[in-house]
Amino acid sequence: MASRSTQCFLTVARKYSTGVDKSVGFLGLGNMGGFMAANLVKKGFTVRGYDPSSDAVKAAAKEGVKEAKSVADAVDGVDVVVSILPSNKIVLDAYLGKDGVIERSRKGALLIDSSTVDPNVPKQIHPVAVKNGKSFTDSPVSGGVMGAQNATLAFMVGGSKEDFERGLPLYKAMGAKQYHCGKTGCGQIAKLTNNMILGIVGVGTSECMNMGIKAGLDPKVLLDVLNNSTGRSWTTEVCCPVPGLIPTAPSSRDYENGFKIELITKDLELGCGLALGVRSPIPLGALTTQIYRIAQSRGYGQKDFTYIYELLKEDTEKKQ
Amino acid sequence: MASRSTQCFLTVARKYSTGVDKSVGFLGLGNMGGFMAANLVKKGFTVRGYDPSSDAVKAAAKEGVKEAKSVADAVDGVDVVVSILPSNKIVLDAYLGKDGVIERSRKGALLIDSSTVDPNVPKQIHPVAVKNGKSFTDSPVSGGVMGAQNATLAFMVGGSKEDFERGLPLYKAMGAKQYHCGKTGCGQIAKLTNNMILGIVGVGTSECMNMGIKAGLDPKVLLDVLNNSTGRSWTTEVCCPVPGLIPTAPSSRDYENGFKIELITKDLELGCGLALGVRSPIPLGALTTQIYRIAQSRGYGQKDFTYIYELLKEDTEKKQ
Amino acid sequence: MASRSTQCFLTVARKYSTGVDKSVGFLGLGNMGGFMAANLVKKGFTVRGYDPSSDAVKAAAKEGVKEAKSVADAVDGVDVVVSILPSNKIVLDAYLGKDGVIERSRKGALLIDSSTVDPNVPKQIHPVAVKNGKSFTDSPVSGGVMGAQNATLAFMVGGSKEDFERGLPLYKAMGAKQYHCGKTGCGQIAKLTNNMILGIVGVGTSECMNMGIKAGLDPKVLLDVLNNSTGRSWTTEVCCPVPGLIPTAPSSRDYENGFKIELITKDLELGCGLALGVRSPIPLGALTTQIYRIAQSRGYGQKDFTYIYELLKEDTEKKQ
Amino acid sequence: MASRSTQCFLTVARKYSTGVDKSVGFLGLGNMGGFMAANLVKKGFTVRGYDPSSDAVKAAAKEGVKEAKSVADAVDGVDVVVSILPSNKIVLDAYLGKDGVIERSRKGALLIDSSTVDPNVPKQIHPVAVKNGKSFTDSPVSGGVMGAQNATLAFMVGGSKEDFERGLPLYKAMGAKQYHCGKTGCGQIAKLTNNMILGIVGVGTSECMNMGIKAGLDPKVLLDVLNNSTGRSWTTEVCCPVPGLIPTAPSSRDYENGFKIELITKDLELGCGLALGVRSPIPLGALTTQIYRIAQSRGYGQKDFTYIYELLKEDTEKKQ
Repeated sequence: MASRSTQCFLTVARKYSTGVDKSVGFLGLGNMGGFMAANLVKKGFTVRGYDPSSDAVKAAAKEGVKEAKSVADAVDGVDVVVSILPSNKIVLDAYLGKDGVIERSRKGALLIDSSTVDPNVPKQIHPVAVKNGKSFTDSPVSGGVMGAQNATLAFMVGGSKEDFERGLPLYKAMGAKQYHCGKTGCGQIAKLTNNMILGIVGVGTSECMNMGIKAGLDPKVLLDVLNNSTGRSWTTEVCCPVPGLIPTAPSSRDYENGFKIELITKDLELGCGLALGVRSPIPLGALTTQIYRIAQSRGYGQKDFTYIYELLKEDTEKKQ
Repeated sequence: MASRSTQCFLTVARKYSTGVDKSVGFLGLGNMGGFMAANLVKKGFTVRGYDPSSDAVKAAAKEGVKEAKSVADAVDGVDVVVSILPSNKIVLDAYLGKDGVIERSRKGALLIDSSTVDPNVPKQIHPVAVKNGKSFTDSPVSGGVMGAQNATLAFMVGGSKEDFERGLPLYKAMGAKQYHCGKTGCGQIAKLTNNMILGIVGVGTSECMNMGIKAGLDPKVLLDVLNNSTGRSWTTEVCCPVPGLIPTAPSSRDYENGFKIELITKDLELGCGLALGVRSPIPLGALTTQIYRIAQSRGYGQKDFTYIYELLKEDTEKKQ
Repeated sequence: MASRSTQCFLTVARKYSTGVDKSVGFLGLGNMGGFMAANLVKKGFTVRGYDPSSDAVKAAAKEGVKEAKSVADAVDGVDVVVSILPSNKIVLDAYLGKDGVIERSRKGALLIDSSTVDPNVPKQIHPVAVKNGKSFTDSPVSGGVMGAQNATLAFMVGGSKEDFERGLPLYKAMGAKQYHCGKTGCGQIAKLTNNMILGIVGVGTSECMNMGIKAGLDPKVLLDVLNNSTGRSWTTEVCCPVPGLIPTAPSSRDYENGFKIELITKDLELGCGLALGVRSPIPLGALTTQIYRIAQSRGYGQKDFTYIYELLKEDTEKKQ
Repeated sequence: MASRSTQCFLTVARKYSTGVDKSVGFLGLGNMGGFMAANLVKKGFTVRGYDPSSDAVKAAAKEGVKEAKSVADAVDGVDVVVSILPSNKIVLDAYLGKDGVIERSRKGALLIDSSTVDPNVPKQIHPVAVKNGKSFTDSPVSGGVMGAQNATLAFMVGGSKEDFERGLPLYKAMGAKQYHCGKTGCGQIAKLTNNMILGIVGVGTSECMNMGIKAGLDPKVLLDVLNNSTGRSWTTEVCCPVPGLIPTAPSSRDYENGFKIELITKDLELGCGLALGVRSPIPLGALTTQIYRIAQSRGYGQKDFTYIYELLKEDTEKKQ
């Protein structure tokens, strides 16, 4: 029923749109955003990009992204705004602040926020956007820097079906999969749910593989058994925590360039907030969050999330 | 180096064997064993079976399993003994006790124990078997009652390569997959490692799907996202904890006829013992064990292991 | 250094104060506040009280608390404001909202908030108070309804030493102990730290006493051993989870009228937020929070926090 | 009813005793046992001591303990045997093995085992002792090396009341407190229950004090608040994890000479076994065990159990 009224608002908002979206204002040209903006350019969109780091802006310029000097400059008059920013506060400021996206984008614009944030952030932005005659979806991504580079990201989208469909050409330019997860906020909820499961499976697989190997199993045999049994998962099939078994897994390159512990910690902490809001018990999720927080506080925030395997197997010999 | 000396022993033992194994003594004709013995009969083996329950013996007789009156009666003179028994103590008694398998089976016999037990149990039995001129492997199975019935079990085998190969015709008669996991005990270690991961993923997926759904996601959409993302696992693909999404999953038949909580609790407790023995830290495994113990003590031991989903989502309204 | 600048501000603010504080505006006349306001009246303060529930206001009136019709009405012209309110949002609204405490209290007034809230709440209120020429302390209490009734509460105060001392006559009228915990927010931090320890000890003592008794110990003997050993705590000495051992403990009156699970859950959740803010790992605190959340979601929010003992000892027999 | 039949057996056994016990055979002259044997000498007992380390035997000889060359030599003809040994297996071997305590001690002797072991160990030894005309109690101690040295140990005794009373002169010579905890095994159960609570409180207090201090509290003020509030415990009053607050606490001497992490880990693991045996859920106890196992595997087994405080507060700066 909530989605029905949402639909009404958005139908009104849609009126302002004028056929096919061509011009894009892009906010946040970091590790992810830089590649995403470049991929939009490659697929024929006109992109104007802004980032507080002028180095990031210049790097993007080499890929054909026009330089903007401010949020307002980037979003002024464009058909679509895409943002991927690092925190709740920065997203709220960029959208709702003075000279921000809502104030400065044109009527009828489609606003797509691909940041990973608390689901309450899109729930705050969405009604303001609608009230100002604009469309808004929360569209966080999974797939990491590699997915951004290769345009294989998955987009989890919260918002009206119509806005989801309007965004499809852009999602397809930047990624390989698109899910309409439900109304506003549901993109974030889907992502946080998925990533909390991932964190739990990552720690659980690490501790159990460590146990089995310590007890005498050959790592290759163990992985083979797991991948043909009930213990298999994306982690065992693609991102095995034990180095050397899967050549493309981060563990096989000293846990570098993976899904960083500092990022999964952030996602798990957002997930804990989500669970708190709906009063849902998450015994393993809460403990996993603490384990990653410890790993981060010990200085391993830049390592892949499967580095827990190394931390659990460390022993006296190594230390002394 | 341990495996080398083992190999020597077993080469000696092998001498006693006489070509192709035809006759089987089967111990334990319960939920699993009854089907396994019947499948051996179907594939042309002569099977004599014993179980302390005379009802179980009679049921197996209908499938062509000859009735034995005791362990000794079942194993006397056979080429191969297969056992699947409920506890460490019962296995040790059956093999090492007076009138037990080691004492009463013929020289050169191959002894296959498919029980799930502490890895120290096969490590105790194996040297006694070898000393008495017999071969022994620990060969626990996964796949449950359904796998036993349909001969799709996976066998995880610990012992010499030679004994593993000698057992293959039997494993293939009773199952679909066979893994040589390493020396004696490694079959149990592989199984306990796999099942501890399964328990962790089961609880983790249950609590996170509950959270996501409570926060507003459509269960079908959530499962679709997970199965196309990093949160996917055997649990999400085959055994989804949320009822109605996967018709063949236990959750869709009121969590009946699945992997019972009392069985996964037993396996997790054996896994905790394994971790203790090798001093391997298992933070999520230990907590998961307690969660299943609580579920069992609350009276849900017969439900599928994914029933944790129902327990976590219960609320005041249901209770009062 | 922060405390030094704070001191300066407050010295200025202090000028407005006129000798001894006599009149009090009291906000929140619930279970705790009703008794606290009455105790102020008994000790000679003139108290005007407001609560959204007119029943609460009338009940307080019988104890000599004058009836106020709004926040503004209660705080208008008084020397001191004391508040004890149920949530972050309500406190922020009461203090910073239109016609709120900051706007409507007189210059030089001392504002004492005894609510238990996120430490960021007093940190938001304090600078606004100072800027408007008023003093502010966060002064949460421990001791429960009984402590409020018998004026034996402990006050944990965050703010300047001067404001702490100015508040002493009021703290002493309402309680037995007063701690100056540090600058603004430190009262809340001390309370949340204490209560997280309490929650952990409550669950830990419950599960271990259950284990010992189940293993064959006489409950009285066990408690005697604990209270003379390293396992003793406030929980074992005053609030034993096992019924019948300490007559005055909530467990001995069916866990009624104690420190309610719904309240400790709230405090633990605030504590998790505190830990998140300073990135401090709390493995047992996070798990304890989830255990209480489960207890609350199962419908036991009104029971004393030691009711975990009953939940952990429940078994099949009771259920079926 | 079990205790009644036990009592009968033991009354029979008692006949062999001849008035006041004077001579003692002492097994295990390590950190604890050396001091305990010396204290028996001081109080007028004749003590013959054995330890596999000849250095330990010689050190004890300086305190007046006569040198024995074997278990049999130590226990031959004495009135009472006291043992304090490091593991289940060593205790079982010493008592039930060839030339062991049961075989070589005189009829009517009182056998006191002060080792900390699985409660099933005394349950195995006790009936054999009784059958052979001897008395047996499990009498583990708390109080550590300091308690052993100063004769302030607490004895937790499982066995008949009569044997408990017969042992009192020895308990009093070696310690300050004595508890009759129930029938055989109950001494161990009481100790393991107490120490599991201690471990939980130790970790919980460490993590929460770390949080509060990191959030800005003065450590002294925090400890003062806790010790006057519901968060107080033996840990906060005697063994504060934060260095410098309690001069006599191990934390104030670099966590040396305290209750070693390797010892509390062993006790917690025995406690987990106890919980498994009676199927009692111990969520915090199980997690605490893993936390200590991690601390030990990282090489901190010799530090006091409150060293968890240091491990949780470590951060990037320290590491890099």
